[in-house]
Amino acid sequence: MQKITSQSEDFSRWYIDVIQRADLMDYAPVRGCIVFKPDGYELWEACQRELDRRFKETGHRNAYFPLFIPESFFQKEKEHVEGFNPELPWVTEAGGEKLEERLAIRPTSETIIGHMFAEWIQSYRDLPLKINQWANVVRWEKRTLPFLRTSEFLWQEGHTAHTTSAEAEEETLMILDLYTDFVENILAIPVYRGQKTPSEKFAGAVNTYSIEAMMKDGKALQAGTSHYMGQNFARAFDMKYLDKDNTLKYVYTTSWGVSTRMLGAIIMVHGDDKGLALPPKVAPTQVIIVPIGPQKELERVVTYANKLRDRLAQTGVRVKIDAREDISPGWKFNEYELRGVPVRLEIGPRDLQNEQVVLVRRDTGEKLFVPESELLNRVPGLLQDIQSNMYSKAKDFRDSNSHVARHLTEMAEIIRDRRGFVLAGWCGEDSCEKSVKQETGATSRNIPFDPPEVLPACIVCGKPAKHTVWFAKSY
Amino acid sequence: MQKITSQSEDFSRWYIDVIQRADLMDYAPVRGCIVFKPDGYELWEACQRELDRRFKETGHRNAYFPLFIPESFFQKEKEHVEGFNPELPWVTEAGGEKLEERLAIRPTSETIIGHMFAEWIQSYRDLPLKINQWANVVRWEKRTLPFLRTSEFLWQEGHTAHTTSAEAEEETLMILDLYTDFVENILAIPVYRGQKTPSEKFAGAVNTYSIEAMMKDGKALQAGTSHYMGQNFARAFDMKYLDKDNTLKYVYTTSWGVSTRMLGAIIMVHGDDKGLALPPKVAPTQVIIVPIGPQKELERVVTYANKLRDRLAQTGVRVKIDAREDISPGWKFNEYELRGVPVRLEIGPRDLQNEQVVLVRRDTGEKLFVPESELLNRVPGLLQDIQSNMYSKAKDFRDSNSHVARHLTEMAEIIRDRRGFVLAGWCGEDSCEKSVKQETGATSRNIPFDPPEVLPACIVCGKPAKHTVWFAKSY
Repeated sequence: MQKITSQSEDFSRWYIDVIQRADLMDYAPVRGCIVFKPDGYELWEACQRELDRRFKETGHRNAYFPLFIPESFFQKEKEHVEGFNPELPWVTEAGGEKLEERLAIRPTSETIIGHMFAEWIQSYRDLPLKINQWANVVRWEKRTLPFLRTSEFLWQEGHTAHTTSAEAEEETLMILDLYTDFVENILAIPVYRGQKTPSEKFAGAVNTYSIEAMMKDGKALQAGTSHYMGQNFARAFDMKYLDKDNTLKYVYTTSWGVSTRMLGAIIMVHGDDKGLALPPKVAPTQVIIVPIGPQKELERVVTYANKLRDRLAQTGVRVKIDAREDISPGWKFNEYELRGVPVRLEIGPRDLQNEQVVLVRRDTGEKLFVPESELLNRVPGLLQDIQSNMYSKAKDFRDSNSHVARHLTEMAEIIRDRRGFVLAGWCGEDSCEKSVKQETGATSRNIPFDPPEVLPACIVCGKPAKHTVWFAKSY
Repeated sequence: MQKITSQSEDFSRWYIDVIQRADLMDYAPVRGCIVFKPDGYELWEACQRELDRRFKETGHRNAYFPLFIPESFFQKEKEHVEGFNPELPWVTEAGGEKLEERLAIRPTSETIIGHMFAEWIQSYRDLPLKINQWANVVRWEKRTLPFLRTSEFLWQEGHTAHTTSAEAEEETLMILDLYTDFVENILAIPVYRGQKTPSEKFAGAVNTYSIEAMMKDGKALQAGTSHYMGQNFARAFDMKYLDKDNTLKYVYTTSWGVSTRMLGAIIMVHGDDKGLALPPKVAPTQVIIVPIGPQKELERVVTYANKLRDRLAQTGVRVKIDAREDISPGWKFNEYELRGVPVRLEIGPRDLQNEQVVLVRRDTGEKLFVPESELLNRVPGLLQDIQSNMYSKAKDFRDSNSHVARHLTEMAEIIRDRRGFVLAGWCGEDSCEKSVKQETGATSRNIPFDPPEVLPACIVCGKPAKHTVWFAKSY
């Protein structure tokens, strides 16, 4: 079997090797599109379960809006159409006839949802309106990369409408908290929370907030965004309500999304030269049991291993057994390490005799000899340990690759020779932000809520800094 | 508030009134498309949960394939392209450029999945391959009806590949059983199971099997289909495997689907002049608690009602409380009957004193006075009773509107003056099937596995019948 390129040799190549060898995806015969294979889709289902529960617990309800958006809808919000027009695919014929008005395939649904909200919202009693949609969206990107940037991808998009700007901003930030909780505690990925600079905000938003994660090559990946729209879309789509004081007022809206690019983040944050490493809370299989032994004893071992599996499964552990006889244990060890299963449980005839099992951690490689009587008690704690350890490792990596720069040459040097994020002061001028990009290749990621340090001067012009900003190369 | 048209007055109008008043959907600003509003989408989520669990338990795995299908793919299976071509929407431009090859929006995914299966299947070890996809699909229909026939709809489509025809046929029928279990036991809708006639089978299939349900206006609704493809798609897409005997062989494939049209079936089978009636197993809310009483006592009642809600919820009942003070109990009673909640729990100051509650069944209108101490024990059984009763009522209706005809005039009379399904003999000739449609307006639904009666002569030509067939007008 083909070897995986090492991360140090070629990180991009390592990434492609891993996702294909781990059977997460395949390239589709349509430009920039991929097929989510069962192991990849299962990861997305795990993300969906966790997010969907959180959305419902915070009062959002799911709905489904059309894939097609009439061309005229995009014209209604000027910045929005400018931002998305270059990436739209157009349906021009259907049912054997040329359409009178072209239909875009949705790149995001603010426009069509805005249109529907305008019909649904009549009175202050109809507010807040808090809707989420699970859907496929399409953006015809020039350069694509599996999971991270594909022509079609899967995501959730939340859309809410409120009576006051304060309530809408509160929603925007509550969702950023929700995303942070999901990404840090379930995916074990530490993030920097903050606000996007005007040039990086969503097309049509007043403010965009983001959580930014660091991949193992030091590049940034935007792991979730939450947008405060003010009344921009309300005015464009005439979303008005009759208030208690009997006057018509525009609503304030928000939107926010997390997509299948999270799969790319999981892989690039936790993966290593052996392959994937999945955080236990999101791993479809948490424990893989591999029976070992000479042919004549194997049946007894497998019978015993099946019992262990059933008992573990009853305690809620997601456990599988691989009892295929025509494949060697060594091959299986490599395979499940490649696929990122957090714990391998080995059991052979001698273990049976000693009433013990061997547990091997994917994150550290550590081998634990556990008395069979303690197994059920030990596994949940072990999974928790692995989850915490994976988060800590990712955080250590992130922190040790987060730098501070006071001069543009210094930042350029860090970005070129080292890797990671660079914190710098910024005067607030677009031109200085552009200079950073030109000189270093890094773009502003966000203006962190809690910067490790506050920088007094703009890294480009030296004038007083309005903001302290994270810069990095990004996916 | 606008009254719902009665079923006897105008069934089609009743249907539209109910789905809008019950807030299940709204019309979208794109031809033939609807918006699934939260209450409607929640019903679909309930269907998804039940089906998804069954698919996984029977060894299927979810995956996701592209929305776009290159035009050339459709050309590969002749019957398939003829069947679907007239309904395809085409993307001709994307990212500001005209595409070299037009891309269809998937109406179903046999072609693109066939292409991928051909790459994934190498050896007999890769078989069977059993995949399911949850997705949106588009068919540009001339006449549309919310849920039942919309330009875009949501569905699941299963696709499997096997080494033998016997195994593939077994899969096809196993899925028909799975659908039957879901539709009869969860949706409380009785179905006739059988095989489609050649003219009604899926474009490209060898055999199509269906389950057919009867709506309250006597029309048929195809509630699920399962197709045995033989090697048609295997040959078209070169799905071959190396067998144990070291020769290359084509696989045998199946596909099967259930869509959001099930929502239409639930409504048209169980609904009445009061509105929706949801079977408890699929109802998002099974019990609605309405506190009653004069303003000064209401707080005490609501506190008590909240406790009841929490206790019921803990036993797994899906229960909500409507404690809004500015809306009268009478209005709420009507509203939750309209929305089809299976059980209403009324509680007022006198009930508090008597330590009892009042339960009102949506299916029968029956009022039950239940001692509070027995409530938790009584509710699950009551929900089960309602579920069974709804199935029985639907089955009685269906059976009493299932007729037998021996002459075409007789069938025409039944279809015209009465309603329902008509069982008739058929010689197997296309021309006779067409005559039935011309003379009666009914089409063949399926050739039932267990016909209530076997008819010896073709209802059109009088020659010996090859099959006994259900005919009906259909959605």
